[in-house]
Amino acid sequence: MTTDGPARTAAGVHLHEAMAADLRRAIETGQLPPGAALPSEAELMQRYDVSRNTVRGALRTLENAGLVTSVKGRGRRVSRREPVEIWASRSESRARRRPTGVDSWVDDVEAQGRTARTDIKVAVVQPPADVAKRLQLEPGGLAAVRQRVRLVDGQPWNLNDSYYPMELAQEVPAILDPADVVTGLTVHLADRGHIQVSYLDEIASRMPTPDEAKTLEIGPGVPVTVQTRTGSAKDGTPIRCTISVLPGDRHILLYEVSA
Amino acid sequence: MTTDGPARTAAGVHLHEAMAADLRRAIETGQLPPGAALPSEAELMQRYDVSRNTVRGALRTLENAGLVTSVKGRGRRVSRREPVEIWASRSESRARRRPTGVDSWVDDVEAQGRTARTDIKVAVVQPPADVAKRLQLEPGGLAAVRQRVRLVDGQPWNLNDSYYPMELAQEVPAILDPADVVTGLTVHLADRGHIQVSYLDEIASRMPTPDEAKTLEIGPGVPVTVQTRTGSAKDGTPIRCTISVLPGDRHILLYEVSA
Repeated sequence: MTTDGPARTAAGVHLHEAMAADLRRAIETGQLPPGAALPSEAELMQRYDVSRNTVRGALRTLENAGLVTSVKGRGRRVSRREPVEIWASRSESRARRRPTGVDSWVDDVEAQGRTARTDIKVAVVQPPADVAKRLQLEPGGLAAVRQRVRLVDGQPWNLNDSYYPMELAQEVPAILDPADVVTGLTVHLADRGHIQVSYLDEIASRMPTPDEAKTLEIGPGVPVTVQTRTGSAKDGTPIRCTISVLPGDRHILLYEVSA
Repeated sequence: MTTDGPARTAAGVHLHEAMAADLRRAIETGQLPPGAALPSEAELMQRYDVSRNTVRGALRTLENAGLVTSVKGRGRRVSRREPVEIWASRSESRARRRPTGVDSWVDDVEAQGRTARTDIKVAVVQPPADVAKRLQLEPGGLAAVRQRVRLVDGQPWNLNDSYYPMELAQEVPAILDPADVVTGLTVHLADRGHIQVSYLDEIASRMPTPDEAKTLEIGPGVPVTVQTRTGSAKDGTPIRCTISVLPGDRHILLYEVSA
């Protein structure tokens, strides 16, 4: 910004805001479709008859809104959204899982013609306070966590950390196995009498942390949807708590509900 | 930024990033609790032994992450999160609604010790393409829309627009009544044989549009969770499509699912 502050239109709107609004309309109406290259800064200066600072202000606004992505050395493009749909209200169905023998995440992604992979690490930790509370752990209590980075088409796509109370991990050794348990741990847990009969999903959105942005290659202006799923046995005992961190431009959570 | 670019620490991290990470930790651990005033720019310059530009860079990072809110003339504070919980998997239950005679939104908010109000406008429009598709409208087809601004404790809290195919609006006059229909339109629709037996919720997150940010007074670094709910009759005919725009720091969507 100059010391005079940004230039304004006759209506008193900052020029860069008016310009951003105009480009936003072009993107929303599809005149500038997803993936399209934006005109260069020089072209935009000429087209809108504004300074380079004004052009950059407008482009920054669009980047911070997640509408435009800048690629190093290759200019700016309209952001692409090719979200994966996740059937959140079906994903724990054992009836669905047993026959396919495939992780429901993999199943959802492959059904959409894309490739899925999961990298898993296993750790024993004192879980974050919100997880400890949902698992009803004693203060300082431990949990086994299966930390997953899920990839789509080879690209890091989301984070999915499942926490289990330590007693369960001792009873069901598969929880601590750093290989993907294709039939799903719910099956192993059920075989030991820990039958998950219901779960509660809590969904919010926020900006990613710097670590999340780095791991998942999230650009500016893209929030994450955070799903906290707590699975319970028939008597209400929590069996596990899973936190999914889902970049907002890449995921749609689907819930089917009977009214 | 100076022409030399931002200063760096010995580890090569930009000073303002290292400073932002340090303040983020203080916020996350509760050392700086929600609502707490941040030290002034001068104090931060002294404490971190950095320039005013570096302090401002760090504070901008925290604001863009939604962690810090600046209030004109009153400095900067740690953002408060006092989200309302919405029982999304129960909200269409007629069994729940008939006896209370209250909008499920109002019911949820009041159960949390807060006050709720809804401002409604009714219009007949060509709905946005994504809504027209979900309502299976003919090209150019019209819909009645009930556009709500919902307030909590007197503050604009979220947007909730319900679209109905025009034929239904002609059959069920309450749809076009700009008063709040306390028993819920599902009841009126059901009385005419249009029984909503299920709905599909699609949930994503994105940054707010400038209009949404203005109406809902959403600060920088706060995304919106967008819930698109399509209700259907037994034969699969769509009855309505509701788009809720929920600022991410003020809402938690809850879904209870049987496994």
